Amino acid sequence: GAGADNDLYINQAIVFIEDAIQYRSINHRVDSKSLWLYRWYYSRTWQWILSLTITVILALAFIEEPSSLTVTSDVRYRLPAWNPPCGLTESIELLCFLVFVVDVSVKSYLIGWKEFWKNKWLMAYILTLIVSLTDWIVSLSFFCKESVRIRRILRPFFLLQNSSMMKKTLKSINSTLPEMASVVLLLAVHLSLFTMFAMLLFARTKDNQQDKEWVVYFRNLPESLTSLLVLLTTANNPDVMIPAYSKNRAYSIFFILFTVLGNLFLMNLLTAIIYNQFRGYLLKSVQSSLFRRRLGIRAAFEVLSSLKETPASAQQSCVSVGALLQVLQKAEMDSRCKQAIMRSLKMCSCDQLSAAQFQKLFEELDKDAIKQHPPSPEYQSHFMQKMQFAFGHPYFGYLGNVVALANIISICVVLVMDADKQPSERDDFFLGAINCFFILYYLLEMLLKILAMGLKRYLSYPSNRFDGLLTVILLILEIATFSVYGFPHPGWRPEFMGLLSLWDMVRLVNMLIVFRFLRIIPNMKFMALVVTTLLDLVKNLRAFAGILVVVFYAFAITGIMLFKGAVVPLGNTRYSNFLQEAEKNSKAEFTGSCVHISLFWLSRETLYFKEKKNVISWCSAHFQAEVICRLLYVLSVHLICRWAKIYFVAWWLISSVIWVNLFVALLLENFIHKWDRRCQRESLSDIEYQRTVELMFRDVLEEPTEEELMEKLHQHPHLQLCR
Amino acid sequence: GAGADNDLYINQAIVFIEDAIQYRSINHRVDSKSLWLYRWYYSRTWQWILSLTITVILALAFIEEPSSLTVTSDVRYRLPAWNPPCGLTESIELLCFLVFVVDVSVKSYLIGWKEFWKNKWLMAYILTLIVSLTDWIVSLSFFCKESVRIRRILRPFFLLQNSSMMKKTLKSINSTLPEMASVVLLLAVHLSLFTMFAMLLFARTKDNQQDKEWVVYFRNLPESLTSLLVLLTTANNPDVMIPAYSKNRAYSIFFILFTVLGNLFLMNLLTAIIYNQFRGYLLKSVQSSLFRRRLGIRAAFEVLSSLKETPASAQQSCVSVGALLQVLQKAEMDSRCKQAIMRSLKMCSCDQLSAAQFQKLFEELDKDAIKQHPPSPEYQSHFMQKMQFAFGHPYFGYLGNVVALANIISICVVLVMDADKQPSERDDFFLGAINCFFILYYLLEMLLKILAMGLKRYLSYPSNRFDGLLTVILLILEIATFSVYGFPHPGWRPEFMGLLSLWDMVRLVNMLIVFRFLRIIPNMKFMALVVTTLLDLVKNLRAFAGILVVVFYAFAITGIMLFKGAVVPLGNTRYSNFLQEAEKNSKAEFTGSCVHISLFWLSRETLYFKEKKNVISWCSAHFQAEVICRLLYVLSVHLICRWAKIYFVAWWLISSVIWVNLFVALLLENFIHKWDRRCQRESLSDIEYQRTVELMFRDVLEEPTEEELMEKLHQHPHLQLCR
Repeated sequence: GAGADNDLYINQAIVFIEDAIQYRSINHRVDSKSLWLYRWYYSRTWQWILSLTITVILALAFIEEPSSLTVTSDVRYRLPAWNPPCGLTESIELLCFLVFVVDVSVKSYLIGWKEFWKNKWLMAYILTLIVSLTDWIVSLSFFCKESVRIRRILRPFFLLQNSSMMKKTLKSINSTLPEMASVVLLLAVHLSLFTMFAMLLFARTKDNQQDKEWVVYFRNLPESLTSLLVLLTTANNPDVMIPAYSKNRAYSIFFILFTVLGNLFLMNLLTAIIYNQFRGYLLKSVQSSLFRRRLGIRAAFEVLSSLKETPASAQQSCVSVGALLQVLQKAEMDSRCKQAIMRSLKMCSCDQLSAAQFQKLFEELDKDAIKQHPPSPEYQSHFMQKMQFAFGHPYFGYLGNVVALANIISICVVLVMDADKQPSERDDFFLGAINCFFILYYLLEMLLKILAMGLKRYLSYPSNRFDGLLTVILLILEIATFSVYGFPHPGWRPEFMGLLSLWDMVRLVNMLIVFRFLRIIPNMKFMALVVTTLLDLVKNLRAFAGILVVVFYAFAITGIMLFKGAVVPLGNTRYSNFLQEAEKNSKAEFTGSCVHISLFWLSRETLYFKEKKNVISWCSAHFQAEVICRLLYVLSVHLICRWAKIYFVAWWLISSVIWVNLFVALLLENFIHKWDRRCQRESLSDIEYQRTVELMFRDVLEEPTEEELMEKLHQHPHLQLCR
Repeated sequence: GAGADNDLYINQAIVFIEDAIQYRSINHRVDSKSLWLYRWYYSRTWQWILSLTITVILALAFIEEPSSLTVTSDVRYRLPAWNPPCGLTESIELLCFLVFVVDVSVKSYLIGWKEFWKNKWLMAYILTLIVSLTDWIVSLSFFCKESVRIRRILRPFFLLQNSSMMKKTLKSINSTLPEMASVVLLLAVHLSLFTMFAMLLFARTKDNQQDKEWVVYFRNLPESLTSLLVLLTTANNPDVMIPAYSKNRAYSIFFILFTVLGNLFLMNLLTAIIYNQFRGYLLKSVQSSLFRRRLGIRAAFEVLSSLKETPASAQQSCVSVGALLQVLQKAEMDSRCKQAIMRSLKMCSCDQLSAAQFQKLFEELDKDAIKQHPPSPEYQSHFMQKMQFAFGHPYFGYLGNVVALANIISICVVLVMDADKQPSERDDFFLGAINCFFILYYLLEMLLKILAMGLKRYLSYPSNRFDGLLTVILLILEIATFSVYGFPHPGWRPEFMGLLSLWDMVRLVNMLIVFRFLRIIPNMKFMALVVTTLLDLVKNLRAFAGILVVVFYAFAITGIMLFKGAVVPLGNTRYSNFLQEAEKNSKAEFTGSCVHISLFWLSRETLYFKEKKNVISWCSAHFQAEVICRLLYVLSVHLICRWAKIYFVAWWLISSVIWVNLFVALLLENFIHKWDRRCQRESLSDIEYQRTVELMFRDVLEEPTEEELMEKLHQHPHLQLCR
């Protein structure tokens, strides 16, 4: 009947408006049941369950078999890692898979059969699930003793497919690949030509004294290639040329030429290319988000205008205010926006809304919230008013900064003075006394500020919240210290009592004080600008970070598989008990892998040096016995050399060369936009905006035209518009 | 009289037009004698003498006392460096100073007294000369035994002041300094806060086993600061955290946080800031060059229009064609441009030229020369025409590339096969035979191409010149080989004869063949694009490179002064003869300094590692005795540690942080401009332009208005315009 129809339209409008708010595509089924399912699928509960599942399945690697979540990485002290019994992690995994199966079926149903075949991500999702489940069954039928588990490498896919931002970013990266490949090819040509040159230049001679360069770095083709590849990362920079240089200074020309061409020109060329490709990336993605929002609102308007209530006589389609109010009440949205829309709806006297009016109403969504701080309390007494003026003044805040700086300096002085003292000679009195004084000042400052501003206004500033929280923690720590160890006096060196020693307590207090010093940031204009930009950047980088996590995870798991049991030490009677321990622990660990890979990534330009060094440091962290370490090192390098080289070069290319350049490109993009806008914003600096990426680009964005919107609406696979 | 006046005007016009061509300022004296002096000053001869003088005075450091220009850097084999007798370098220096004195007086006279006081560069020039001459007198009065020579540090100034581009660039860098300083300040705050944190976190404990981290990296404030500064360069990356990490894995969070914030965010922020500042740099400099050119031409027009010949009745000022022809004949300019202007002057039928027509005539100067290749010879015979078609076709060039590739591959294969053979086992027959074959092919290719294209057309292509030159050299080498060692046959291993052994000859031939392979570059589109952009970049970077040379030179000289005699080894009986040698050679050398500093610069991110390693490699290059090296190393690090740290940190900041970022900024600027234009140019790709920076920006440049030009002309300090 008409009533049911009307209900359906209302529901469709609600969903479309929610789509617009969340920048979602509106291409889904629109019948009553599907709408209910759709709202359930995008409800907070289900999305939360999904995120939790993804987190759990990714985190499983930390407790699964060849892994260890121990405090120390030193095998001599650490307890054996807890190995979960066969079936425990597997049953958790099965639960996760079931959630994913539900997810993929609902998603596929909602977008409809036709769309499903076009959506490669969904098909890959199903394929991944099938492979994972098969692998899971195989795993269980071997009683968890199988050596290769494909499903562990596939896990990061679940993270990838759940985020539309990440999928978009990946597409962007994909389109940059051809140009990147050209530069990498150029690098390869550069490398191979110089390798041939080097092999001819540093050939073996009859005089054994003269060919040190040949012996160490250019013995054969793979070795020469490696030497020069590493020179490209500047890791072996002076060493590689020293033998030749000591023979004839002119040889340095070869190396300098190679480095300048390769490292300075070609590597930076990669930065330039990636920056050039990503220049429009942010703008384009914001533009498409805007289009989705306008489309959702327009779709809501269209379905509402086909409600039976509206007078059919009207030429232009329009929407009754009552229907819109009904929709607004049921739609889930930010309460501030909802109220603002309701308010302007009431202010507008008309009964019917045209499409333009309808869009205009929802522009509230694009606006940034102007944060209003609650007012200060109004005191009656003259004295209190003066107090309020004095302690509410910015100068009082500056005084607080000066005091914090003085505190930092005093800690620094004490640290420098105590640097060479034995722990037993150290006197904690001085530091205890001054910290006590400073913390009292902080407490006083906080109380006076609360007095001047009122508690609500005080808490509405983030810097005050940061300040107050740290002050309270410091106070608690100080009270705890005094209650356990008594008041400080000269020669105050009590025995260990309670949870922490006095020295640890004092250190903790000092660290918190150093941390509290960060409150000066908003007071320094340039620093504030940099920090807000960095925070913005972090928001924009979430998708990149997600992709990085995916790559990290895949590399860590691959590393474990490749190097499992590769580091097998051979006999040395003296250290044999260590060696047995070593053999037991020789399987690569996930936690270790992760940290090592992140280390490797951080030390981005030091490929080869780190490749060898990493093995050493890995060993030395595990055994602390240098002799074994060298033995192991020589063996392991020979054993895993072939695989390790390819693995590490791939890792270097992906993580350091490509990812770091992507990062630089995004950073440049963000900063240059911010910088251009700096002057404009300086005038508005008193008002605190909650800035989003969308706002940064607002004045460059193009509004979609009515024709574009309608064309897109008519292409909707499930919605039949009446007209 | 009027004739003398006319002559003066003509001369002024000639000079102004020459100024316009060279983008020089026109603010100089304009009386007859000054004009003669001005033209003499900017004549090729004098400018060449000046450049030579600057080169000579800079090059002096290579032969002056604590330096050594020896082939090997190994003290055991090298002959004592030639020490010029006292007075030799000094008298060369005096000659140079005299040239500079002439230079500065002419320059000062030409710009006039008033302008002189505004010109800080000229005053600094005079001051530098006075200080240098005083130092020179002091030096001679001590019979060259004085220890500090200030004038050596001042030398690069002469290079700096002679180039207007470098002065402009320096000004640009100067204006970026405030923002760079903010970021460096931010880095300093970051570093100091984290240092305090680290010192509190890794404090000394009572258990000596547990505080390895403290012992090695965080013993006191300077040590902690250094450790973290070096971590910022990622040089000590995994090592610095291994002791702490092996105690508790959570400690890695501290290091990862520090590196991500400092290295990834703040360091790249510096890139972003510098790029942002330099974005408009090229455009601005090209714009001001254009203004100078237009101004010079306009000034020439104005002086010519005040010639007595012109009819006074004319309302608008104008210039007679005859006068202009007279000026053109005497002015020094590119003959192509001169002819083009003459031609268009003859084509224009009018007798008088207005200002706009006058400017338009000289637009020829802004145009790029379209290079026209001479035509191919036209053969009568049908057979020859067919030959011409076949060997003039691009496919024949591709065939040549394929053959060159085959040659490279064959060399590569031989190298791989011979890699492990003893030199005495090596058989040179195979390589000799295939090289002989390939070189014959190259010769044939060259001859056929000359046949098809004619010698002139063949030589008009740079790729052919490159090709042909290398082919001829290869042929000569091959003939020399055969004449000395006979034709190759199996077991062809003759004794050493003549200048080079057979093996060296073969190696040389192979290197040339590898080098010749670069001819494929223009055939690969992307590579060609990259290479042309790089060449453009090199042109634009000349000013930067000049400044880098200035900084290099100053640092090398400062390094010599600071570390003179710092590396003094102490007794070890066994190596005492080495040690005496060492003591003799312990003075730092200029050549060594230069190379070491350039090495250091190339390995840009490895501050600390290289700081220590450099001393080692320096020693090992000099003594080859590892034991001494370690002794020396320990001693020298203790002795020169304080100065070395400051010196190397300064060097790192200036060379790697600032200069490399400047380089990246310029590269980005250049590439992005090129890229945007790529599509446009692809259609024109057959025509070879001689591209200049000016042309790259032509469509963005703004023409100066008539009012701006006239205002500037009226501000001229020496030229009184009649109207």
